[in-house]
Amino acid sequence: MFIGVIGGSRCSRKVAKLAEETGRELAKHGATLICGGLGGVMEAACRGAQQAGGRTIGILPGNSATAANPYIDIPIVTGMGEARNVIIIRSAQAVIAIDGEFGTLSEIAHALRSGVPVIGLNTWALSKEGQKVDSIITAQNAKDAVEKAFAAARKNP
Amino acid sequence: MFIGVIGGSRCSRKVAKLAEETGRELAKHGATLICGGLGGVMEAACRGAQQAGGRTIGILPGNSATAANPYIDIPIVTGMGEARNVIIIRSAQAVIAIDGEFGTLSEIAHALRSGVPVIGLNTWALSKEGQKVDSIITAQNAKDAVEKAFAAARKNP
Amino acid sequence: MFIGVIGGSRCSRKVAKLAEETGRELAKHGATLICGGLGGVMEAACRGAQQAGGRTIGILPGNSATAANPYIDIPIVTGMGEARNVIIIRSAQAVIAIDGEFGTLSEIAHALRSGVPVIGLNTWALSKEGQKVDSIITAQNAKDAVEKAFAAARKNP
Amino acid sequence: MFIGVIGGSRCSRKVAKLAEETGRELAKHGATLICGGLGGVMEAACRGAQQAGGRTIGILPGNSATAANPYIDIPIVTGMGEARNVIIIRSAQAVIAIDGEFGTLSEIAHALRSGVPVIGLNTWALSKEGQKVDSIITAQNAKDAVEKAFAAARKNP
Repeated sequence: MFIGVIGGSRCSRKVAKLAEETGRELAKHGATLICGGLGGVMEAACRGAQQAGGRTIGILPGNSATAANPYIDIPIVTGMGEARNVIIIRSAQAVIAIDGEFGTLSEIAHALRSGVPVIGLNTWALSKEGQKVDSIITAQNAKDAVEKAFAAARKNP
Repeated sequence: MFIGVIGGSRCSRKVAKLAEETGRELAKHGATLICGGLGGVMEAACRGAQQAGGRTIGILPGNSATAANPYIDIPIVTGMGEARNVIIIRSAQAVIAIDGEFGTLSEIAHALRSGVPVIGLNTWALSKEGQKVDSIITAQNAKDAVEKAFAAARKNP
Repeated sequence: MFIGVIGGSRCSRKVAKLAEETGRELAKHGATLICGGLGGVMEAACRGAQQAGGRTIGILPGNSATAANPYIDIPIVTGMGEARNVIIIRSAQAVIAIDGEFGTLSEIAHALRSGVPVIGLNTWALSKEGQKVDSIITAQNAKDAVEKAFAAARKNP
Repeated sequence: MFIGVIGGSRCSRKVAKLAEETGRELAKHGATLICGGLGGVMEAACRGAQQAGGRTIGILPGNSATAANPYIDIPIVTGMGEARNVIIIRSAQAVIAIDGEFGTLSEIAHALRSGVPVIGLNTWALSKEGQKVDSIITAQNAKDAVEKAFAAARKNP
């Protein structure tokens, strides 16, 4: 099982704690964590995953593996900038969005377009013409997010 | 001036009319229209632009120019699927989002992340943790959208 | 007709002259020139094309249109580095390779793989296990290259 | 250590045997094998690597992990077609080219352009204006190729 964790390359201490717990839970459940490979939410999630014995993949935007955070086992170097967001999404059976800025929003949108389930923790909410669009599955905490990600991924062929 | 028009590859008649008017206004103002090259909002906007003597570019996701709508002057064939959304955004000085589904939302997000101004016509609204995020410049009609796109593009170096 | 011109971003004066003549011939024949948008062979070819009233497209690797050479009419900003080479190839009905380094060789290879005819002027020669692979159509000069490009492009559906 | 294996998606039995031996040697030396994830040379190399207890990554061109050969541990789904060749190259410290068609030639060229060492087994030979270009390090057999790949990768910062 490959589960994506998406979120900002900078984040508050509180968000980092949430990301680290999410990474740890993913590892405990045997999932490989796939992310953008940089700092902030990505780094915290990878740290949690590695500490719990999990495996981490970083899909990097730049031209060198040296930009990967120190908790990436497998750095994939794309040299394609933000276009790499699509690869994170397509390589995951489900993604967990934690907080995040516009880059994360682009990943949420690519995932929903491709039918990859998105679990949200303190992240974006969407509406169109005054109506809420409830395509993001809301989670209450890291454990809940990981359980919902596994449940959604199993339904996603 | 290169202005992007983003929106769904299928749309209602009402939305198509709005897109066509937007294309026409862009052409009257001397802008080159850049879009994803397919149907729906893209096709209607290109038709409007060509009818008013404007120039149109289609950044196509597939492997062949034959998928371009009939109103594309310059088909750019990427073969990169949804990753091509980033190219539309980066090649425009401003983008006008008309209605749209998740693909359009990904383009809005990529634009806001890259600092490319987004003008919205009946499109997505964003919020995070209960707070509205007002990064999309709302327009009332096609003419208003094009004027706002030009004003925003001029400020965008 | 969209014809690609591929070659190094730096080149000798002699090669630049050849590229400029090629651009001029393409414009005289009514083709739109598509290239990587940077200096060297690309810039010389675009200069020749513009001087003869032709239209030029630059598929840029970086994040900004400001990197385009001064003779690009339509800058397409990909932000995808060398992956943009594939877009130049797929958007052309035939390509003319002039001199060139390894970047040009990658474009020749992508073109031959995709069935896009390649006309060569002082460029790479290929062999495998001691046998020449004659997939590049050799031209003697700029005029010959453009005529061969048009002939090959017409056969390329 | 991440070492790329590049080659055609179809190949002769003799070439498959060579690829399988190369994969086995890579695994014995502790390298992770990175490739395009499909059949032919890629599949044979991954089979050899897995049989010797090694880890394999497939950078897939299409939109689904189901296209991966059965010996891929980590499928990375790009949806970017041939543009994914650049990712294989950039993610490897050295690449071993085995036989191969034009797709392999594009990967060799991208590698040489980016300074990634290329070891060749029965693969392309290059020349320009009548002069051989000896940028590919020739190997005699699978063991020799893997040793040369490791030696070159260590020099590649």
